[in-house]
Amino acid sequence: MGYKIAVVGATGNVGQEILKILDERNFPADEVVALASARSVGREVSFGKKTLKVKNLADFDFSGVDIVLSSPGGKVSAEYSPKAAKAGAVVIDNTSYWRMDPDVPLIVPEVNPHAINEIKKGIIANPNCSTIQMVVALKPLHDAAGIKRVVVSTYQSVSGSGKAAMDELFNQTKGVYMNETATPAVYQKQIAFNVIPHIDVFMDDGMTKEEWKMVVETKKILDSKIKVCASCVRVPVFIGHSEMVNVELENELSASEAKELWRNFDGVTLVDLEHEDLEYVTPQEIQGEDDVYVSRVREDASVENGLNFWCTSDNLRKGAALNAVQIAELWVENQKKAAA
Amino acid sequence: MGYKIAVVGATGNVGQEILKILDERNFPADEVVALASARSVGREVSFGKKTLKVKNLADFDFSGVDIVLSSPGGKVSAEYSPKAAKAGAVVIDNTSYWRMDPDVPLIVPEVNPHAINEIKKGIIANPNCSTIQMVVALKPLHDAAGIKRVVVSTYQSVSGSGKAAMDELFNQTKGVYMNETATPAVYQKQIAFNVIPHIDVFMDDGMTKEEWKMVVETKKILDSKIKVCASCVRVPVFIGHSEMVNVELENELSASEAKELWRNFDGVTLVDLEHEDLEYVTPQEIQGEDDVYVSRVREDASVENGLNFWCTSDNLRKGAALNAVQIAELWVENQKKAAA
Repeated sequence: MGYKIAVVGATGNVGQEILKILDERNFPADEVVALASARSVGREVSFGKKTLKVKNLADFDFSGVDIVLSSPGGKVSAEYSPKAAKAGAVVIDNTSYWRMDPDVPLIVPEVNPHAINEIKKGIIANPNCSTIQMVVALKPLHDAAGIKRVVVSTYQSVSGSGKAAMDELFNQTKGVYMNETATPAVYQKQIAFNVIPHIDVFMDDGMTKEEWKMVVETKKILDSKIKVCASCVRVPVFIGHSEMVNVELENELSASEAKELWRNFDGVTLVDLEHEDLEYVTPQEIQGEDDVYVSRVREDASVENGLNFWCTSDNLRKGAALNAVQIAELWVENQKKAAA
Repeated sequence: MGYKIAVVGATGNVGQEILKILDERNFPADEVVALASARSVGREVSFGKKTLKVKNLADFDFSGVDIVLSSPGGKVSAEYSPKAAKAGAVVIDNTSYWRMDPDVPLIVPEVNPHAINEIKKGIIANPNCSTIQMVVALKPLHDAAGIKRVVVSTYQSVSGSGKAAMDELFNQTKGVYMNETATPAVYQKQIAFNVIPHIDVFMDDGMTKEEWKMVVETKKILDSKIKVCASCVRVPVFIGHSEMVNVELENELSASEAKELWRNFDGVTLVDLEHEDLEYVTPQEIQGEDDVYVSRVREDASVENGLNFWCTSDNLRKGAALNAVQIAELWVENQKKAAA
């Protein structure tokens, strides 16, 4: 017997990726409903070989739905996730709205699967894309040697800002070849052939909210004692986030010991071939892949027990849709255990 | 009375920029000679309203030349810079070949102008582009509060790799719109819509040579006690290098104190307006500008006396040609002082 699933925000970048991954992984679904805002009603989205007609979220009755995979905007989530939870579903919410709620577990299955036992509001939060790939890479290091401090700079793709941002990069770049003046809309500055150190809104202390998310979410998922300084930058890449991560550990851990840990850690692919051209991974190469790719691992002599690495992942998959589906799988497994 | 100048590598990105800047700044030149390898002989390059015919470096007689501004490849520099120095010229060399020679001063005029008194081989080295903009930004912080450690991630434009790399980005990007497969030549991986964590060759410890340069050159120019971890990444930007810089200071320095220091430091433009959209600078906006732009200044609570900022500069100007011409100006001033 399978589950009844509702995908909220089914026409977005992440919603469509969720439908693809549910099918790829043969998720035990008896029925899948695609939901979105009124203006998308009637549109069709693919689910494996099937096509789903998008229904209106506003008047959908969640009774009988087991699992809701939700990636609309934050405001929509604030209203509909509790509604769906009240109707009896478990909601896996991909927005930032619920993540720091103490009664909502924030889960990356490779890192803190035990948090699945702490569902108090019927809602589980899916972390920020940049946080997910970083904590997966950090987990084995933390277990082995204890992480004191992380300094991370990101190189984030435009797909994290949605389809309109991908179109903006595509059209703005094309415009450069036709001598057109760039007119930023999604972003505050030109993104074509440029980098923008500004993701999400600015906060009072000069941090952006994206940077703040990486700090507080890492603490909530991995360990509240870990100190993080995050700097987030948008780059003209369509899909795939990259991060240059500098780690200060409690205890000594050589680069080769760290590599050995990553080689044996589920969810990480370590790239470390003999030939220098393949010694590292770029975002363009891992679009559509599931794993977090770790490369360019080296010791950092500028601090005691320092380590430095490059971490790349498909932000729409592990950074969003895949992690959400993995949480759903974890929940299903947990239900089965409870029933046994 | 002016000087006789020779520009070696006059047809390259940096050589042409040097000619432009000599003219812009009314450098006291009586004669300017453009030199390059045999295959460029006879080509014409602009110098203000004049046009210079490129001469062959291999059979050029440096007698009578006062100042050589040299930006060819490292091997050419190893051979011709000492030759020119022996003929009596002072050579300002933009390659990495001489930078770490203890008898060759490595100068950024805003940072260590006193080093002009230590010319022992007739050669002065111009630092690496990424180092120059960083040490200019670090100098006032170091003077005020003492820098212990720097963790920097770069976002470097393709012009740093020369004209062929700019063409590769241009043509590869165009190819994406025509569904062509990218065939990297200058770079090991596709640069269009991608980022590449690999600049210059790999060294035994997993660092690239570009990263090593930032470590050792910062020590030589600013202070040998400063610890640096540098990670260098190429981004699909034509001109303008950016750096996310994390600094740990000996003594407390607030973000607003740091901003005040930068506001009063020659060579730095601090961008810190009220309106958030203008609160930071992107490389595309400062192409052709002279200054090092500092923005996104904030305190970093993850370490004692931590500070974090974003630093952007035109790598062909302050990162190369402008700094070389400023060294020449410093040398001229020093000659005048000595003569007085």
